[in-house]
Amino acid sequence: MAEFGRSVPRLEARAKVTGRAEYTHTMRLPGMLHGKIFRSTVAHGRIKSIDTSAAAKIPGVHGVFTADDIRRVIPDPYYGPAFHDQPILAMDKVRFVGEPVAVVVASDPHIAEAAVHEIVAEYEDLPAVYDEVEAMTSTAYVHEQLRPAGSFADLKHLKGVKSTNLALAARLRRGDVDKAFASAAHVFEHTFRTQKCLHLAFEPFASIADACDSSITIYTSSQGPSFVRAEIARLLGWSQNQVRIKVPFLGGGYGSKLYIKLEALVTALSLLTRRPVKIALTMEEQFYQITKHPSTLRIKTGVDKSGRITARQCEVFWNGGAYADVGPRVTHKSGFVAAGPYDIENVAIDSYALYTNMTPAGALRGFGIPQLAWAYESHTDMIARALKLDPVAFRRLNLLREGRPHASGTILRDAPLEEVLDRLCERLNWSAPFDRGSSAIRRGRGVAIALKAAISPTTSVAIINVSADGSVTLYVGTVDMGQGSDTGLAQIAGEALNVPAETVRVVPRDTDVTPYDMGTLGSRSLFHMGNAIRIAAEEVRAKIAALAREVGEPEGSNTPMAELFKKKYGMLAGNIIGTGTYKPDYTPAEHETGQSTNITPFWMIGGAGVEVEVDTETGQVRILKLVNVIDCGTPINPRIVETQISGAALMQLGFTMFEKMHLDAGQVTNASLADYKIPGFFDVPEVMVNEAVEAYQHNAPFGAKGAGESATLCVSPAIANAIDDAVGVRLMELPLTPEAVLRALRSKAGAPLEEA
Amino acid sequence: MAEFGRSVPRLEARAKVTGRAEYTHTMRLPGMLHGKIFRSTVAHGRIKSIDTSAAAKIPGVHGVFTADDIRRVIPDPYYGPAFHDQPILAMDKVRFVGEPVAVVVASDPHIAEAAVHEIVAEYEDLPAVYDEVEAMTSTAYVHEQLRPAGSFADLKHLKGVKSTNLALAARLRRGDVDKAFASAAHVFEHTFRTQKCLHLAFEPFASIADACDSSITIYTSSQGPSFVRAEIARLLGWSQNQVRIKVPFLGGGYGSKLYIKLEALVTALSLLTRRPVKIALTMEEQFYQITKHPSTLRIKTGVDKSGRITARQCEVFWNGGAYADVGPRVTHKSGFVAAGPYDIENVAIDSYALYTNMTPAGALRGFGIPQLAWAYESHTDMIARALKLDPVAFRRLNLLREGRPHASGTILRDAPLEEVLDRLCERLNWSAPFDRGSSAIRRGRGVAIALKAAISPTTSVAIINVSADGSVTLYVGTVDMGQGSDTGLAQIAGEALNVPAETVRVVPRDTDVTPYDMGTLGSRSLFHMGNAIRIAAEEVRAKIAALAREVGEPEGSNTPMAELFKKKYGMLAGNIIGTGTYKPDYTPAEHETGQSTNITPFWMIGGAGVEVEVDTETGQVRILKLVNVIDCGTPINPRIVETQISGAALMQLGFTMFEKMHLDAGQVTNASLADYKIPGFFDVPEVMVNEAVEAYQHNAPFGAKGAGESATLCVSPAIANAIDDAVGVRLMELPLTPEAVLRALRSKAGAPLEEA
Repeated sequence: MAEFGRSVPRLEARAKVTGRAEYTHTMRLPGMLHGKIFRSTVAHGRIKSIDTSAAAKIPGVHGVFTADDIRRVIPDPYYGPAFHDQPILAMDKVRFVGEPVAVVVASDPHIAEAAVHEIVAEYEDLPAVYDEVEAMTSTAYVHEQLRPAGSFADLKHLKGVKSTNLALAARLRRGDVDKAFASAAHVFEHTFRTQKCLHLAFEPFASIADACDSSITIYTSSQGPSFVRAEIARLLGWSQNQVRIKVPFLGGGYGSKLYIKLEALVTALSLLTRRPVKIALTMEEQFYQITKHPSTLRIKTGVDKSGRITARQCEVFWNGGAYADVGPRVTHKSGFVAAGPYDIENVAIDSYALYTNMTPAGALRGFGIPQLAWAYESHTDMIARALKLDPVAFRRLNLLREGRPHASGTILRDAPLEEVLDRLCERLNWSAPFDRGSSAIRRGRGVAIALKAAISPTTSVAIINVSADGSVTLYVGTVDMGQGSDTGLAQIAGEALNVPAETVRVVPRDTDVTPYDMGTLGSRSLFHMGNAIRIAAEEVRAKIAALAREVGEPEGSNTPMAELFKKKYGMLAGNIIGTGTYKPDYTPAEHETGQSTNITPFWMIGGAGVEVEVDTETGQVRILKLVNVIDCGTPINPRIVETQISGAALMQLGFTMFEKMHLDAGQVTNASLADYKIPGFFDVPEVMVNEAVEAYQHNAPFGAKGAGESATLCVSPAIANAIDDAVGVRLMELPLTPEAVLRALRSKAGAPLEEA
Repeated sequence: MAEFGRSVPRLEARAKVTGRAEYTHTMRLPGMLHGKIFRSTVAHGRIKSIDTSAAAKIPGVHGVFTADDIRRVIPDPYYGPAFHDQPILAMDKVRFVGEPVAVVVASDPHIAEAAVHEIVAEYEDLPAVYDEVEAMTSTAYVHEQLRPAGSFADLKHLKGVKSTNLALAARLRRGDVDKAFASAAHVFEHTFRTQKCLHLAFEPFASIADACDSSITIYTSSQGPSFVRAEIARLLGWSQNQVRIKVPFLGGGYGSKLYIKLEALVTALSLLTRRPVKIALTMEEQFYQITKHPSTLRIKTGVDKSGRITARQCEVFWNGGAYADVGPRVTHKSGFVAAGPYDIENVAIDSYALYTNMTPAGALRGFGIPQLAWAYESHTDMIARALKLDPVAFRRLNLLREGRPHASGTILRDAPLEEVLDRLCERLNWSAPFDRGSSAIRRGRGVAIALKAAISPTTSVAIINVSADGSVTLYVGTVDMGQGSDTGLAQIAGEALNVPAETVRVVPRDTDVTPYDMGTLGSRSLFHMGNAIRIAAEEVRAKIAALAREVGEPEGSNTPMAELFKKKYGMLAGNIIGTGTYKPDYTPAEHETGQSTNITPFWMIGGAGVEVEVDTETGQVRILKLVNVIDCGTPINPRIVETQISGAALMQLGFTMFEKMHLDAGQVTNASLADYKIPGFFDVPEVMVNEAVEAYQHNAPFGAKGAGESATLCVSPAIANAIDDAVGVRLMELPLTPEAVLRALRSKAGAPLEEA
């Protein structure tokens, strides 16, 4: 175990700090043209006309293209990972403000930008819908019919359904909640909401396509090169080996850079212009690409006299925006675990994916679980308070134990919920007396705990190539977007082959080179790709042993690789190549109940504890201490795990305290970093604790699993619980702004805040 | 056999004719600097001083570097495939006119060029040697001591030898030539010479290095990326996975772009400047990089009364120039077959690699065999004429038959010498009456036949990756330099996997991506890499069969790949990857005799027949008809084979008729394409026949072997033999210029040509 538990510095650190690391956003190709997008100004409307004539006349403009042009090279230009519902450019109608309607291609991005302003489009307004609950019953239909794809296309009841905004309804049933509620000592019911906010990677979306005859190379800032390759091949009607996706380093992703974003558009433009074409969005344009799901969660819980939760019912409404993106999968997969990390006999969950006339929503660091945990861990605290139970004790009483079935039907394994909760209490000094502040400045504290299932089943393939001098090259499609996967995966390869991680070369992601991987998402890479690497390394070791036998080395002799190669080939020649494919076991859910005995190959656990100070005169909340404890099995690289925990927690802190896209009739009114605040240095809590418990995931490579999302899960409810603890007000909607706190305080005092 | 015998159009044809194909010569990297070389003006001299101060002052010049600078980043800057004797820049002394002494690096190649003219160097002249036979005994030593490397370093008697220009003496002994000569009915002895000429690829040498911290990427016009990687790693003291060699298409190679050419120099410059640095030679500079070996061959043959050759002795002197490059290997390997394709009981061969003060010599399309065949097939014809035997009948009588041991000791297998000779006679209509011309214009005809062993043992590795949609990607290090290897190898993969070659993607050569290959040289690729592909395809087929079983397909069902993947992974996910390593069996030569029972995995056979018209008043020779017949096993792609035969024959036609580097005290006096004539359209013979006999190489992939060199072997002697047949003069030295013919005619008539 030489490579494990060692905080190997990031392999790419030097390239990044010296500016040598390559990003799509700064790449240029010879002869490259630049595209700029003309976007819809209405939320829902029929396109009456698009006048591109003035734009086309501007010197330097190579062409102005609309959906009609796109269809000349891609006849059926609808894409998407779950539904094929999103057109490359708007066709016939627009469905959200900011939707791409036309695109200018010019020799220079500034010329393209100027020309975009010369385009004039006329729309016939259509009724629009924005709220996810209203969308269930609204007759303002965003789509004329459902276009499910992939495994969703196999769900016959979805095929071609018309007149609905409900893209998907997923359900889970265990026991009989109605009976349990009827016999419960107490029943609690609350409704929580989350806001629309977004990923805002510091490298905005950027893609370059270079089409040449019957092949195309796309350079793109993507978390999922294998998906992009398959989807572009499908759109073009080509085979996968005609499509090459190259992904340099990413300046962040967080779930935004998955599936198709700009790739299909630049593909069409390169085919139309026969030149490389780049589109790189501005920071502001990111508000029109993909967001987190706003959501409404109605949660109802029955508790018996001893404080045991006997029943829980959840209704989750996911606001998917105008196009499904991966929303139906978020709806389905996160639905499974909406009842939280508790041992509950009777569970009923309904999870609804809804279309609305807003920027599409996708996965954002947690695949829906942060929204769910916000609701159920606020709710759990409210019950404990109502029952006058210590919130930690109430949780401990109800926590799911190792070996017990989760509501989904899957047995809990390698999921140390209690250890995480214990460590939280320890770091918060929970049992010690707590200074609750005085007069206007009140103090409080809160905890929350949650679990997440991995998306399953998904596949990863790894190749390891040992050169004749014994040096190791690793081929993985996992995208290093700042999380340190190159380093972590090199450590797994190094551990398996007994070489230092620093000497392992990780080849840049390129679908011509790095084999299939489902995508860098959902904290799946370390486990799935790690297992693929482990399998590949086993093949390498077996081949080395065979080579040693072949050249007559005695069993167990530790002859250097270079010597073995030289004995076999007479010189430094040849390679030893091992390949590994990993796909975990999985049991499909039973149709009627939605239950499965194996929904996930591993569980992720996150717990948060906070101490806050609330200024009752201003509503201002200061985070004095933020503790995040997670389970990631055996940490490979403690330093990277720590930065993943703190990064996730701070990102969620922004979503909790202030981030929100404000919309007015579908128009984003704060689409800039001047108006949309993200956490800055002064927002970092005074004390931050970022820890992983000691654990071991038995089916994982050397016991390790992902750590990227777990610290996002519980920050929001822990803070809301701490605010309640401090000042006795309960906020039911994110973000927890000073205004919201103040309104709640005034309302509690019987004096609602006057509008200014 | 769907893919075999099908003239699939070149996969890269469209990219090449549309100008989209990438060449190193036209590549640019951001921030790239350009290097220009300051070269020695003396053939042999001690460097007294180099004044770079004026050059360094020119605006735009980033630096002027000499050997002292190189040693700051590469302490021991000597490289070479056989001997580590060549410094990156001249150290202490210069050994040939044109040797790199200093280099200017500037923002623009024209600035660098101008600055080079400002450099002043002073040399102390040393005695020089130019002739290979003189070099044997000259005391003008080119090197202070021998620096053998690799397998040559294992030859203890070479290590550190001083005061010699003899780099290597190789020998082969079979039977007892002295005894056989003593008892022979006739003994013939002649000496033949070949000139200094060169490859002259239409894309001159070009390399770009981009060094970054502890890794480097080199873009280079190279036939041997794996060698370059290993040698640069050795020079830097790095591991191989820190060095990446990317090779785009090549505008020709012919053996010139092997081993290290500009790669070590640009590596040092990029490390020194911390910028990408490119050096691209001009056409003229190619005269100072690498050439064909001039040679002298003394050949002596004993013949019995029946016309059977009983003994042959060869002494070959190879003029290697100032640095060994691959010369010692040419000396050694071609030495084996210097006695020709005949069944001779007593053979003695001595083959000498010599240093002289000229541009280094390497392999040029035939690895020395064209020089040898020129001699032995001229000699064979002279014997037949002297014995008044038909030259074809004399050859047929002595030809080595299938199953008989070659002089080297290796049994002849799959080497249809008789079929090649028969086909030649057929195409020349040899037995029919021949119009011999009249008065001043005389006609003649001649034939020649030769065989070549492959360089052995060498290793190739191939990877085949099948994507989830069933499309196939092929990873090979074989460099497509115009010979059509991408297409031919795709056909082998297609044949093995039952897919059309046009659908196979061949990934560009990149040592981070394409596995080890010894090099694209010596017609080895189709056989060696073809076998590696065959092995990789077998693994792929086995894995597909296993996958089919796993997903429950009945045995023998022909379910499409995409279906199998979908059944296994639930979507278009995963890969099937097969790898193949091929290294033929080989028996090392016995030390005393040089014999081996297995010197080559396959034999190459080339035969040429010509009809010429000689103008006895001018010495002008017109080639009326040039027939080349080769054995390449089963032709994979008949059209490519045909163009390989015609291309090789025309290249050798230039070396035969007019190409020659003229030297004056070591100074090349015709170092330009204006003064050094290569074949043009008007030099193409009126009738050209390019054919391969029907054959099958049993250990080859689907019976196929290489075709790139075989038609170079016999063009020179066939033409000389035809001239002799036409006008009764025998030329003993190449090229066969009108002046040489006229001199010989006058000399024969007793009237030597007066100097003009």
